[in-house]
Parts: sequence; C-alpha cells; structure tokens
Amino acid sequence: MTITPPALSVFEALESEVRSYCRSWPAVFDRAQGSRMYDEDGHTYLDFFAGAGALNYGHNNPVLKRALLDYIERDGVTHGLDMGTTAKRAFLEAFQDVVLRPRDLPYKVMFPGPTGTNAVEAALKLARKVKGREAIVSFTNAFHGMSLGSLAVTGNAFKRAGAGIPLVHGTPMPFDHYLDDTVPDFLWFERLLADQGSGLNTPAAVIVETVQGEGGINVARPEWLRGLAALCERHDMLLIVDDIQMGCGRTGSFFSFEEAGITPDIVTLSKSIGGYGMPMSLTLFRPELDVWEPGEHNGTFRGNNPSFVTAAAALDAYWTDGQMEKQTLARGEQAEEALRAICAEHPGLGARYRGRGLVWGLEFADKARASAISRRAFELGLLVETSGPEGEVVKLLPALTISPEELDEGLRILARAVRETA
Amino acid sequence: MTITPPALSVFEALESEVRSYCRSWPAVFDRAQGSRMYDEDGHTYLDFFAGAGALNYGHNNPVLKRALLDYIERDGVTHGLDMGTTAKRAFLEAFQDVVLRPRDLPYKVMFPGPTGTNAVEAALKLARKVKGREAIVSFTNAFHGMSLGSLAVTGNAFKRAGAGIPLVHGTPMPFDHYLDDTVPDFLWFERLLADQGSGLNTPAAVIVETVQGEGGINVARPEWLRGLAALCERHDMLLIVDDIQMGCGRTGSFFSFEEAGITPDIVTLSKSIGGYGMPMSLTLFRPELDVWEPGEHNGTFRGNNPSFVTAAAALDAYWTDGQMEKQTLARGEQAEEALRAICAEHPGLGARYRGRGLVWGLEFADKARASAISRRAFELGLLVETSGPEGEVVKLLPALTISPEELDEGLRILARAVRETA
Amino acid sequence: MTITPPALSVFEALESEVRSYCRSWPAVFDRAQGSRMYDEDGHTYLDFFAGAGALNYGHNNPVLKRALLDYIERDGVTHGLDMGTTAKRAFLEAFQDVVLRPRDLPYKVMFPGPTGTNAVEAALKLARKVKGREAIVSFTNAFHGMSLGSLAVTGNAFKRAGAGIPLVHGTPMPFDHYLDDTVPDFLWFERLLADQGSGLNTPAAVIVETVQGEGGINVARPEWLRGLAALCERHDMLLIVDDIQMGCGRTGSFFSFEEAGITPDIVTLSKSIGGYGMPMSLTLFRPELDVWEPGEHNGTFRGNNPSFVTAAAALDAYWTDGQMEKQTLARGEQAEEALRAICAEHPGLGARYRGRGLVWGLEFADKARASAISRRAFELGLLVETSGPEGEVVKLLPALTISPEELDEGLRILARAVRETA
Amino acid sequence: MTITPPALSVFEALESEVRSYCRSWPAVFDRAQGSRMYDEDGHTYLDFFAGAGALNYGHNNPVLKRALLDYIERDGVTHGLDMGTTAKRAFLEAFQDVVLRPRDLPYKVMFPGPTGTNAVEAALKLARKVKGREAIVSFTNAFHGMSLGSLAVTGNAFKRAGAGIPLVHGTPMPFDHYLDDTVPDFLWFERLLADQGSGLNTPAAVIVETVQGEGGINVARPEWLRGLAALCERHDMLLIVDDIQMGCGRTGSFFSFEEAGITPDIVTLSKSIGGYGMPMSLTLFRPELDVWEPGEHNGTFRGNNPSFVTAAAALDAYWTDGQMEKQTLARGEQAEEALRAICAEHPGLGARYRGRGLVWGLEFADKARASAISRRAFELGLLVETSGPEGEVVKLLPALTISPEELDEGLRILARAVRETA
Repeated sequence: MTITPPALSVFEALESEVRSYCRSWPAVFDRAQGSRMYDEDGHTYLDFFAGAGALNYGHNNPVLKRALLDYIERDGVTHGLDMGTTAKRAFLEAFQDVVLRPRDLPYKVMFPGPTGTNAVEAALKLARKVKGREAIVSFTNAFHGMSLGSLAVTGNAFKRAGAGIPLVHGTPMPFDHYLDDTVPDFLWFERLLADQGSGLNTPAAVIVETVQGEGGINVARPEWLRGLAALCERHDMLLIVDDIQMGCGRTGSFFSFEEAGITPDIVTLSKSIGGYGMPMSLTLFRPELDVWEPGEHNGTFRGNNPSFVTAAAALDAYWTDGQMEKQTLARGEQAEEALRAICAEHPGLGARYRGRGLVWGLEFADKARASAISRRAFELGLLVETSGPEGEVVKLLPALTISPEELDEGLRILARAVRETA
Repeated sequence: MTITPPALSVFEALESEVRSYCRSWPAVFDRAQGSRMYDEDGHTYLDFFAGAGALNYGHNNPVLKRALLDYIERDGVTHGLDMGTTAKRAFLEAFQDVVLRPRDLPYKVMFPGPTGTNAVEAALKLARKVKGREAIVSFTNAFHGMSLGSLAVTGNAFKRAGAGIPLVHGTPMPFDHYLDDTVPDFLWFERLLADQGSGLNTPAAVIVETVQGEGGINVARPEWLRGLAALCERHDMLLIVDDIQMGCGRTGSFFSFEEAGITPDIVTLSKSIGGYGMPMSLTLFRPELDVWEPGEHNGTFRGNNPSFVTAAAALDAYWTDGQMEKQTLARGEQAEEALRAICAEHPGLGARYRGRGLVWGLEFADKARASAISRRAFELGLLVETSGPEGEVVKLLPALTISPEELDEGLRILARAVRETA
Repeated sequence: MTITPPALSVFEALESEVRSYCRSWPAVFDRAQGSRMYDEDGHTYLDFFAGAGALNYGHNNPVLKRALLDYIERDGVTHGLDMGTTAKRAFLEAFQDVVLRPRDLPYKVMFPGPTGTNAVEAALKLARKVKGREAIVSFTNAFHGMSLGSLAVTGNAFKRAGAGIPLVHGTPMPFDHYLDDTVPDFLWFERLLADQGSGLNTPAAVIVETVQGEGGINVARPEWLRGLAALCERHDMLLIVDDIQMGCGRTGSFFSFEEAGITPDIVTLSKSIGGYGMPMSLTLFRPELDVWEPGEHNGTFRGNNPSFVTAAAALDAYWTDGQMEKQTLARGEQAEEALRAICAEHPGLGARYRGRGLVWGLEFADKARASAISRRAFELGLLVETSGPEGEVVKLLPALTISPEELDEGLRILARAVRETA
Repeated sequence: MTITPPALSVFEALESEVRSYCRSWPAVFDRAQGSRMYDEDGHTYLDFFAGAGALNYGHNNPVLKRALLDYIERDGVTHGLDMGTTAKRAFLEAFQDVVLRPRDLPYKVMFPGPTGTNAVEAALKLARKVKGREAIVSFTNAFHGMSLGSLAVTGNAFKRAGAGIPLVHGTPMPFDHYLDDTVPDFLWFERLLADQGSGLNTPAAVIVETVQGEGGINVARPEWLRGLAALCERHDMLLIVDDIQMGCGRTGSFFSFEEAGITPDIVTLSKSIGGYGMPMSLTLFRPELDVWEPGEHNGTFRGNNPSFVTAAAALDAYWTDGQMEKQTLARGEQAEEALRAICAEHPGLGARYRGRGLVWGLEFADKARASAISRRAFELGLLVETSGPEGEVVKLLPALTISPEELDEGLRILARAVRETA
C-alpha cells in the first residue's frame, strides 16, 4: 500500500503546534469499525493502538452503538451534571452488580469529570484531605495526566517542563525492575519512611500503575504490588492504583490489580470505562474515605449520560461471565509468541519484549528503532504507537475484541516492519 | 404539582458524598427536549439552568441530533486523540469560517482535552511558558475549574480547601464593582505593577471572566475590560479570557468580550461549544504564542469526534447570520423586565438583579433566600440554580433557544417562588 | 576634604561581587567612636547611618564597652547556645524589669539566632504553627530579611529575584498612604477577608513595620496601626510587628508601636538590641502562643553572650528613665526643622520629607538625586544612605546618642550636598 | 560531684519553651576557659561539646582573647555591614594566604550574614541563580539550618514540621552507608538523573556534609565523596559542601573535604571560623559562579568585625604550619581507642562507634541509652551531647585544643557513664 500524504491544510494552518498523532500518521481518518480505521482516501488501517486504551471494545462496537443510538433517539438526558438520571442509575447498578460485588470490592463511586486526569486529581485531593498531608509518592516513568496535580506525579521530563512552574509535593520511587534486580524491593522507600531524619515528607498516598503504559510497558510483578500494598499499610499511606489505561480488562481481569490480590484504597478508571470511546471517568474509594462535602469537587461534564449508556451496555455484554478475561489472556499468549519470534529472528538488535494480557512492549538496543518501526508499520497499514521516556518502545495495544486472525495479521506486519527497518 | 421523593437508593448507597445537584433536585430525570426535562415519575420541569451553560442550544437539539445520529450510524470515527479526521476538519473549517474570520480573530486552535478545566490548565501553562514567569493574577470570585492549576486561580474558599495543598502562584485582584465604586479601576493593581518594591511577583498573565457565573453573576463593564486589556499591554502580561460559561452566545455575541472590543491573547471555550452537551473544549491563542512542542500537552479524549460533529452543526445552524445574537438580547430584555418587577414587588427584601444577554442574577439582603427560592421553584416545576460565594444569588441561565412563552412561564414561576418564600 | 580612593585590592580580588556599601563609600574604615568613623587614611566621617540602625547607642559606646571588656577579661561564657548563663539571666532580668514590665507587655522571649532574618523566620514559623495556616500578609515595600521565609514577605523585586525559586505563601497589601489617600484604610484587605469567594488564602498572620526603613521611610499613622490591629483581631490573624530597625528607641519609645497603643501578638527585635552592634535578636510573643517544642527552632549563635552583656548594660544605662525617649524626640524635631528648610530652599526639586523620632527620609521628584546627594555627602564627610525601591530616598538614621551639635553639623552637610547636586 | 538544680526562675518564667540545652544541663554557667566551663555554684565541667563545633579553639582562647581585647580597647570598627575595614582586610588577607592559596583553592569569599543558615541560604540562592533551576538534592539525615531555605534540605522530621508550610524543592538521596552496603553508590541517584522519565526535577546543586554531625556522626568515605563530585560534574549539578560543623580543622585538615581530594563548587563555613565563638560565616565559591549583583543578598551583621579579628588571629596562630592537623589526628586516635574499649567492655549493648578527626559518635542498640549516658555524664562533670534522628548517638566534639590529659579524663568519665547506665 502506498500512502499519499493528504492535504492537511486546515490542520496545519489553524491547529496548534501541540498536535501530535496527526504528524506520525499523516492521514485523515473518516470511519472506523472494530479493529479497522479507514481514511478518506480509501486506505484501511489495522489498529494496534485502540485510542491509547480507550477502545478496548473496538471502534464503534455494534452492541454499544445500538444502545447509544436508541438513547439518543429517545431523547434520553445527554448532559446531567450530577443530577440523578435513569441512565446513571442503570450504570451504577451494572457497575455494582457486574464489577464490584463479584469481586467483593467495597468502593464508593465518584464521577469526577470525564477525563483521566480529573479522576487522578480527585484521587489526590481526597488522599490529601483524608490524611492531612501534602506529599505523594509516585514512581519512575509514571504517567498520570496533564493538569497540574496529575502532572506533578508524572515522570516524563518533557511533559513536566510544560507546567511552567516547579512541580512539587511529589517524590519518585523506583518502579519494579527499575534498579538492577539485586536491590531488595522497597529497600530505599521503607528506609526513608522508617527514618525520622530521612527528609521525606510523610506521604499521604502512593500512586501506581500496575503496568506503566506511557512509561514503556513496565510490568510490576504481583509480589511487588503486594509488597507495596503492605508497605502502605505499615506506614499509614493510602494506595492509589491508577487503572486508567490498564483497567477495564486490558491485562485480562477487569481491574489490573486483581492478579496481585490487593485491594487499593483508591482506584481511578477512565479510557475504556465508557465503552465507546467517549469521555468518562471514575474515582473509586473505600467508603470510610468518602469525606467529601457535597460539591467540593465538581465539573461540567461529570454526567455525560451517553457514556453511562455505553458503559452499562459494555459491562452487560462483556463482563457478566469470564469469557472476556480468558479471551484476552489467550490473545496475549498469541502476541507474546509472535514477539518472542521477532526477538529470536534478530539476535543482533538487542530486542526485548514484555507485557501482560493485551498490552505488550518491544524494545531495541537502538532507541530510535521503535519510531522507525512505527513509521514503517503505518506505511504497511498498521497503527502502532511508541512509548517510554524516549519513545524507545513499540507499544502494542490492540482492542480486546480483536479476532485471532486480525491479531495475527498485525503481528505479521509488525514483524515485517522490524525486518525492513533492521 | 406535588413531588414525591423518588427512591434514590443506588445513588445514596454507591455514589460518593460529593454528589450535589441530585440533593437539590431529588428527581431521577429520564428525558429532555429543548427547555424541558422529564423525570421518570412523569413530572415535567422547565429548565433555567441549561447544564450550567453547556446547553445553550437546549436539550437534544433536533438539528444537532440529526447530525449526531447520522455520524454514529455511519461509523464515523468516535475517538480520535489528535489524529486528523474528517469530522475534526469540518469543525475547524466551520470555526474558522463562522467564528474567527468574520470577527477578524487571529487565533490558533488547541484541543486540550474535553473539559473546561483542561482548557484553563492549557492556557495557564502556555502563558507561563511564553513569559517564563509563574505568577497569574485572577479576580475575586473567579471560577476556573477543579484541577490544581485552575483551582489555584479560583476564588471560592470551600473549593480551594479541597485541594489539600496550599494553592500558590495566584494573586486575586478586585473584579469590577468589587470595592465601593469610588475607587478608581485598577488603582491597586497598577500601583503594584509599577512599583519595584510592591512584593507582587510579576504576572505571566491575567485570567478573567467577563461575567462571573459561579461567582454570583458579576458583570464587568466594557470599559473595565478595556482598561484591563490596556493594563495587560502596558505591563507585558497576557490577557486570558475564560469564556467557558459566557462564550458561545450566552451574552449575545459569540464571544462575551466582543462588546468591549478587546482581543484577548488567550481564550478558553467549553460547555456549549460542542452544542449537544457532550464534552469538548478549546484553547485559542494568538499565533505568536503557539510555542508548544508536539505532544507537550495531551489527553485521551481531546478528539471526541461526536462533539466536533454537533459543534460544527451548531455553528452552521445558529451563527452564520446575526439572528442568534439579536434573539438572545431580546430574551435578555424580557428577563430583565421580569426581574425588575420582582424587585419592585418586594421593596422590603433588598433585592437586586444584574446580568447581560441571557445570564441573570437575583440577590436578596437575606443570603439564605436564594436557596429557598430555588427549592420552591423546583417544587413548582422550574430548575434554577444559585451561585455566589455563599449561594446567595438566584442564577438564571435558560437555553438561548428558549421561546418567549417558556421564558415568560419560568419567570412567572420564579416570581411566585419569591412571593411564597418571602 | 578630598578623598583619595584607597587601594581596595584584596576586597576587589577576593570578595564576592555581592559587596555593596564598600562601593558607595570607597574607604577603609579603621576606628569608630560615637557618631564618628575614621578611615585608615586619616579621614573622619560623621555617621548618619548608624549601622543601618544597629548602632542606636553610637559606635563603641564607652559604657557598654566597659561592660564588654570586663566580661571578656574575666572569661565570661562567650558562646552558650541556649544554655543558662549568668549573662543571659542578667539580660532577661533587665529586659523584664526595664522593658516588659513597665509597659505591661506579657511577652515570652525567644532567642532565635542572632540576626534579624532569623527572628522573622521564627516569628513566621510560630504564627503558622499556632494557626495551622500557611498564608502571611505583608505590605508593599516591606523589608524583613534575606533567608527564604523572610524574603517571601519582603517587597523588593530585586532582592526577591535572588531567591531563585518562586516566593509563595505571601500576599502584599497596601501600606498606609500607598494608594491615593481617598481610599478607606483596609477597604480591600477586609473585603478579601470577609468574602468566602475572594481567593485569598486565610492568613495565619500579618507582618508589618511601623515605619518602613528600607522601603523608603514610609510612616504608618497610629490610627492605621490601630485599624490593622483591630482587623487582625476581627479576622483571627496574628499581628507581627517587625521592630528590628524601628525598635530600641529609634522612633522615641522603646518599641515603635507604643505610640499607637497596640500590643502585637509577636514582635521581632534585632539590630540595636545588643547595644554594641554585635549580633543578637529576639522574638517576643504572647505566652499563649508559646507552643514551641524544646529545640524545634535552634541555631549555633543564639546564645552570643557578649551581646547579652552589652544589651543589659544598654537597658540599664538608657532605659530606666524617660530621658532617652525625650532626647530622641527633641533631636527628631531638630532634624525635621532642617529638612523643612531644605525643601523650602529648593521649591523646584519637588522635595518631600517624612519621618518619626530619629528616622527621616528626604525624597525628590528626580529619583536619581538621592544617590547623588549621598555620594556628595560622602565627599563632604557625611555617611548617609538611600532607601526605597529605587533608592530614591535619602535616609537619615543617626545614632540616638548624637549631640545636637553633631546633628546640626550633619544636617548642614546634607543641605550643602543637596545644594551642590541641584 | 553532686549537682543541685539551680534556681532557673527567670529562664522558666520568661524564656520560650523552645529552649533546649538548659533543660539537659540544668546549670547556670558563668565562666569558661579552654575545655572547662564553670557554673555559678562552683561546679566545673569538662566540655566535649565545644559549642556544637563553634569552639574548636576552646573557650576564650587566650591568643584570640588578647587580639579581641586590643581591638575593642582601641575602638576598632565593631559593626561594619560590608564596608571596607582594616579588620576585614586583615581577615581576607589571612584567609587567602593561610587557607586558600596553600590549598590551591580558587574561591571568592562572600560574607552572607554571621550564621550558618545564612551561609547555606546564600549558597542555595547562588546555585539556583547560576543554573536557573529550583531543585536541590540533599541527603538523608542532613542538617543545614533552620531558616526556610536551609530547612527544606534538612532531614529531621521534627525540625521540618516547625516550618508550618510544606517544604519543597528538595529531594533526599541516600548518604553513604545509608542502605545496606551491597547497593552500589549512587545507583539510584544516577539512574534518576540519566532517565528522562524519572520524575526528578533536574537539580541545580547537591548539598552535602562530609560527616553528618547532627545526623548521627555519619562519615562519608573519601571514595564516596569523589563519586559524588564526579556525578555532579557528569550531570551539570553544582556541588555544595556544607563545612559549617566539620570545617576549620574538625576532621584534621582545615576543610573536611581535603582528604577526598575534591574541590566543591561552593563551600559554607561558620561555627569555628570566627575562632572565639562569636557569630561569623562565609560562603565560598568558584569565581565563575560569582554572578551576584551588588547587594542582592545582604544582612545587618555580615560585617561583625570583632569576629574578623579573632578569625584572623586563629588562622595565624593555628594554621600556618601543619601542627594543628597532626595534633587533631593524634587526639582522634586517642578517642577512637577509648571508644573501641568501651564497645569491647559491653558486648551485650550492641555498641558501635564511628568518626574522623575529633568528631566521634557512639551508638547503642537501645536508642534511649545515649540520652541516659549524656545525663549521667553531666552529673559526673562532662558535657556531651547526643545526635541522630532520635538522639540515639552520643556525640563527642571536644575542642581541638584539648590536652591529651583532658581528653583522657573525659573519655574515662564517658566510660563510667556507660557503665553506670548499662
């Protein structure tokens, strides 16, 4: 397939220089269905990107689409702030019945505004309010969002510099595998906490991703997560799991922390929770932490009811039995096998892969290679992003609903792109 | 009409204590159309609230609804991050042709994430980056959002306390009419700026609402806004107009600052820009300020394409001629006249009204009265909110598409609610 | 007198560029006595500068000198941290008997380290600890010191820029006479405090100088100070009077706030409290504020016992009757008369003078004139400093022990310097 | 010796609760000479505390005393701000000839105010100004002072809490030996610096003590210091050595970092630099860092000329040959031997000792023992302090001028105190 760069004039003339993906993928997309996107020039792309994790159920999933169209057609409430609506109630009931109760999770549900960063801001506010402390511990290569509260616990220096003010109150600790693996887990962190002279401001909370997506597909071991949860309990810190990218089944189970058997104090969800790729987010927390005053955190779009409709439909369609989880793990094995083969095929490239469920990363000794592969894949009709602090990791994030054949097709394109950039 | 409080069980059991409107309006809403909302028990409500300004075109506006259904039905791209899409291009072209070019506004357009607070965060980041300074001047009773950057320039002490950290880098100045009106405008502000010993950190920017909606319907005079713009120019500060609630025609013209004849350096839009009440926001700025690096500010839902579709449809339907503005001003006069009559009817209540276009506030000597009126209005079938630092102002914010008859009906209910709480 | 610039080689070669007074006054001083300084080349200077207020009793005051020599000769404890010593006890007893008890002041005494900025740091810490709030209100053109806590409440932009970090938690308010005098005192400040939407973080304390020395000899009226004290009481803020430069009799009474009849919650003293020009400082506060834990604020030189000895001797010699105060006020009238004459002599220069006790400022329409006068005065054998945000005020700060003849001599030199630079 | 608690009335009645040493040592001291202090009741104390390191040359050293008395008697300038004086010149020349030139150190000299914390504040300001960055890296259990800038890089949680504001811009790293000694030096620190996603704000500077006195007598190895200096160079950070307590010969050489063969970018000195225990401090830095503007950092007591006199006399008397260093190392061996014997005598107490030159620490498994030993030692006529985050280390800090006999006497009292508290 040959791609002719389309006329991007209005984008170039009018849209801010901050635009980004439209530079990597110089196409104008028009339609999308499942794991395929179509540009206006008739090209088709297989999507291993899935809206950065917001499209776990694929583009314009027909089951959710039907529910959404019905709702809009019957003039269901669209914009509801935090008024009670029938759509919101249906979502809350589904979330309780399908997600929380079967997992024995005690959480209260907050609608903090429809974006991930807002869910994180609310989580951090609540943790600080509950504990009466300002400090938050985050991890190397964490990504939690772009508004100032979230950005202060995000690792990426380039994003941080955008703040224009010194970002404070956050202290990074080493994520799993960050140091050479001979250093005992949490050696440094616990020493700081136990020592009255360490200089660490006592943290209100620790915020962690179980798999760091933007940070380079860094996978925390279950025992590391359990160690972290135990550390938090020993030292009276709240544990916040930011499950915005890794929740909603990305790693297999609905929440990514289920494998480790931990129950975080606070959980953030966004991206795929709405099901259809429309804005929605949640902050969940233990009921005893629900010290909010009415309206203390608000937001215009915290009641985006169309998202509640597709969110409830997605829970009903995919999470009432264990099929989704099994399928994701099976697809994950398929991906892992292909990545193993790619690495084996190119012993000289210093390639490594890592991942869990349906999120995988492929890294090369030459840090620039990931971008080259992503570019070549695009030319070959595959959308695949890079991640990591220097964009050095090819990041595979297909829809969970991808068929084995589509997955295979994409992995073959990827293998070819590796080959053709080697 | 008698309202029986509906069973709110799942809301009460599962939703966080932070929920707010569902407490004031104990109904479960199901459908909405134009200026009417319908609860599941068959009650009808006239809406003078309009999604806190997100529904300037009414609930589920049929023109926009058609465009939205078509787009969803044909599997248009839903979630696009900042990829180029046909829907985004159509929006950009419409925004350029219908909004920017006719007003001779030179702005670049940034999609910072779909919420107002994200647009403000992006504006503040950009101002700080351009000027290399941290300080921002805001105004008494300003409201700019709940994430930490926006909250630091928001006035409300209750919301600020939610931050859990000291909010810094912002300094409040008196909004128009804040002091007794004998003090010359900007006397204090300019003195601080001109004096090398004043202790004010030199601001990167000033952020202002032309009418403070949440702050109590405080209306800045055009000459005050012009004075502010001139002050900014004299002292090398960027002027940011937060037009999230007052833009998109709320005060008559598309932008609320048009009346004053100023051109802010940066403008934020959200709420009604998407037309249909779905999340969308924009940060606009002079092209010479577009110093963003690609991807320096990002966000998962910054390309919510269904909103682009309804946004473009709204611009086409309402803003290609001057009808919308004229109609809004006419409805505004109708509202003002009714408020004048209410005040005249109750000389002992110390009532005052103020507003512009279709945003009006009604304040009483007894600060608790506004809430009582809002409650009584609800019982009488009218949704009307309060605002101001102590909720002391009844805030009228009907859809711009309201009919004169509906407006009259609502104003009569309001008058009755005043009477019945006096 | 002709001054030949002395060889400054080691100063220029070795001392940092931060050095300052040695540039204005290019002499190498060797000896000093009373109001005279002598350089190594045999020149004599009349001192209207008095160590920036640290030498209220003149250079090497013979009464204090005797006590100091005796103490050193008998091997009294020199360095004592906060150990109990006989010298410290003698000072505490004198301070209680001579200063606190006659004025019915209830203060506890803290030795926070021997510099003014340390006394201010301790005062701010204590206020924040007591009130559990971070914010401090200071005033335009305030000067409180160079360490980060004090600098954050200091007005001068040049000094503030030296911090290298954004200075936060302080908000400036207009000092007396700062705005045009038609604006009611504290109109803005009280409005901010009373309004829950103002955006001002509730202050723990207000810090004020009764006369701003570095800020340009700005004199607060007694009624303004009383208004401030009342405001603090109404709004639960502690009132800190920084009396480092204006205390110890500079304005006549021992504390500069006595005239206003107020009792601040916290008072800082330094500069002349030690009597002999050696480092010493105190933080005084109401006993109910004494919530310090032992050692919570410490410092190596907080027990500089030689200063305790001269401090006690100064209290005994000068403050057991009312002579010092009367004399200072008389000298002040002498100074004022001369300044009035200077202004009258040059109606075209737009000269203004202001002051209280023995601190006076002389300002000209041309802001550069003050420096020229100071330079010319130096050539004529008079040491006189400038102050104000742009160094636009000639600052007269003679020793309180100056004789009428010396004062007259200096004022005549000053008049000549004005004349010769006009 | 039996100590009768003296009447402490005025201290208890008038002095703030913040007082500390006078609680541990309930005596009223009157005179002092060499290594002996005398209270007013006729008791004599051997001093192993030496003014927390400010009395390296002993109390009221007769050589310095003579110079001081002469200076005061002849009315030498006492208070000089940063005017040129003959006393200051003599000090600068001595410092150049005796300290800087023989060690080939290129430093410019700044007089930042006479206390250690002021020297640190100046060092941090300068580093931030030079590098244009806010962040500073400090070490676990660091102690740098009580004003806000210094406190933010101090480790002790109790002292930090006194700030009343969140202390920011500082990040602690592990001091030498802090983690188990299998972790490679600087593994974590360098990983953070090298990783663009680590979340560490790029530091302007690193501030370190070569031996942490207040932190518990933690001794950095020379190779660790060299590693740190190399790390700073590789990552463009300034290296600040805070030599306030360990400089002026405490560890043997004049500067404590000489043994490691490094040349810090900035050095702070205070405590014993003035020789006689009177306030004085210096900030030294490479000439290319001297970007201060005149007067950008100032302070009333930065020209305490009596201290210049004793400082110069001390340099002349003790540092023109290598005797002082040799003697200190010899005394150090004497102390080490005694500590080794104490530990050997009590194998069950889990005692450990560590130190360098004439600073030694003795730690026990039972953290409360150090205080008990200090108390018993006081009863036995020995002044010895504790240090460490929980006061768990007995800290030996005798004057460098102590005789072998006095040292032996004190060590025997210490051994007895250990025995009698075991």
